[in-house]
Amino acid sequence: MEVLERVEELVRHLTNKNLTIAVAESCTGGYISHMITNIPGASKVFERGIVCYSNQAKIDLLKVDPQIIEKYGAVSIQVVKILANNIRLFSKADIGIGVSGIAGPTGGTPEKPIGLVYIGFSIKEKVFHQKYQFETNRINFKVKVLEKVVQILENHT
Amino acid sequence: MEVLERVEELVRHLTNKNLTIAVAESCTGGYISHMITNIPGASKVFERGIVCYSNQAKIDLLKVDPQIIEKYGAVSIQVVKILANNIRLFSKADIGIGVSGIAGPTGGTPEKPIGLVYIGFSIKEKVFHQKYQFETNRINFKVKVLEKVVQILENHT
Repeated sequence: MEVLERVEELVRHLTNKNLTIAVAESCTGGYISHMITNIPGASKVFERGIVCYSNQAKIDLLKVDPQIIEKYGAVSIQVVKILANNIRLFSKADIGIGVSGIAGPTGGTPEKPIGLVYIGFSIKEKVFHQKYQFETNRINFKVKVLEKVVQILENHT
Repeated sequence: MEVLERVEELVRHLTNKNLTIAVAESCTGGYISHMITNIPGASKVFERGIVCYSNQAKIDLLKVDPQIIEKYGAVSIQVVKILANNIRLFSKADIGIGVSGIAGPTGGTPEKPIGLVYIGFSIKEKVFHQKYQFETNRINFKVKVLEKVVQILENHT
């Protein structure tokens, strides 16, 4: 199934369950928010999105402690969990999503190669993360991340 | 020219001019941020994006006075100018963009029909807006708005 159809199903599912969602995305750069808001009626479930591309945006808007970024890096389990939890708390949405990764084509290191992505989920007080490695181009990378977000939300809501 | 190519040219242009950009978008739902961040090296120019879909997000994150929304509506010249100016000030970017409109298929009124969109620009202390009417589907509406944003930024930077 095309990713847009899956997002449409997810929006219908969240609407039926009366659940709202907010997204703090770095490497996906607004793609998750864009795809959700392509669905008519998305405003019933989509509360807000933050494209926290710079570290300063993560600090200012999601209250990520600069020392956490310093210690673990912006692409880390610690950061995506804070992104997910704080976007949920600040927006009062039921579900918070946080994404940080290395879309490429530059910016990889041996420890954190291009294609690495962490996705944080904050759902009804439960905060967890997933880690993936998607070696593909910059645009398809975003699609792969969204597919995982949809799949996990389908399983956890 | 395809819109992605035009965005790529814009990113190159802003990079050469050493200008940064931040976007506060409502009806375009993250599409503008998404398209800019599709370009490799976008992190040099793109500082942050806010998808202020709900009124509360506009109030919380862009400090839009609720009385302004009450008086003029979320889709108004007044609101997009505040979005553009505040995202620029808060992010310390050189360019701020604010977008609010009615993507449809519902939500139109005789005074503010489906397809209406206001785009606010805050560039080096100059704040101005444009008004358009794009009667098309929800996804193409976003493309039309982005084309205008690119065109105006090409002319004003």
